[in-house]
Amino acid sequence: MTRYFEDYTPGLVVDCGSFSLNEAEIIAFAKEYDPQPFHTDPSFDSPYGGLIASGWHTISLVMRQLVDNFVDGQTSLGAAGVDEVRWPRPVRPGDTLRVRATVLETRRSVSKPDRGIVRTLIEASNDPGDQVLRMIAINFVRTRTTPDGVDAT
Amino acid sequence: MTRYFEDYTPGLVVDCGSFSLNEAEIIAFAKEYDPQPFHTDPSFDSPYGGLIASGWHTISLVMRQLVDNFVDGQTSLGAAGVDEVRWPRPVRPGDTLRVRATVLETRRSVSKPDRGIVRTLIEASNDPGDQVLRMIAINFVRTRTTPDGVDAT
Repeated sequence: MTRYFEDYTPGLVVDCGSFSLNEAEIIAFAKEYDPQPFHTDPSFDSPYGGLIASGWHTISLVMRQLVDNFVDGQTSLGAAGVDEVRWPRPVRPGDTLRVRATVLETRRSVSKPDRGIVRTLIEASNDPGDQVLRMIAINFVRTRTTPDGVDAT
Repeated sequence: MTRYFEDYTPGLVVDCGSFSLNEAEIIAFAKEYDPQPFHTDPSFDSPYGGLIASGWHTISLVMRQLVDNFVDGQTSLGAAGVDEVRWPRPVRPGDTLRVRATVLETRRSVSKPDRGIVRTLIEASNDPGDQVLRMIAINFVRTRTTPDGVDAT
């Protein structure tokens, strides 16, 4: 079922499933995009007491869960941005992370009546339930009905 | 030269170089992490009038420029988060993006005197000079001197 702007109602909570990441994946991503030693070298005297994933790796994997479970390819018109990205705890090799999306607020665009703006709290937590990522996504989503009442479906 | 907390002074501007990205790279990243059709399918009737890069791809490539030119692997203690991520214009295949970091404000950590917190405006612009990414990074950086005056170098 296609999810339109009208279907993203404040308070909606969507479980976006879980994923795991291993040491080789953490190192491969970091070598390409974020080669700080605590992301690339397991033998480095890390301030985190071991290898941890790049925060951008975590977000990229979380994004995949969102595209598969929350963002609708038929109605998504992209994102304006993201507010308040936080990585409160490190992500380590072997972690399994669960992703949840909670719609915070929505409004129709005034300048472009074919779309609305959806603000969503994105959270990822590890197996003990500790939060490792949170951020507020600002997405553009196609409306089902335009202000003159025409149904787009 | 190692850059310590004390070297990140408000107003410091660092040119972090430039990079290009092509269609194959855009599609490969998006298929793995952000498979929305306007990132993966050049023939899709894109709301952007063509294929555009995932915003997370742009950020990951910008991060690489920062690690190579601004963040110091010897003194970086990671990031607390990022504020106000914005993608004001799309990134298209063949674009060359220039990255700039501007230190906004800094303060020593009260609870952990071996480090300070640096807030930095990160910007990326395409060849015509239009901004395609901006965000405010919040980084932990090792101090050269501790409050009792001991020099860490």
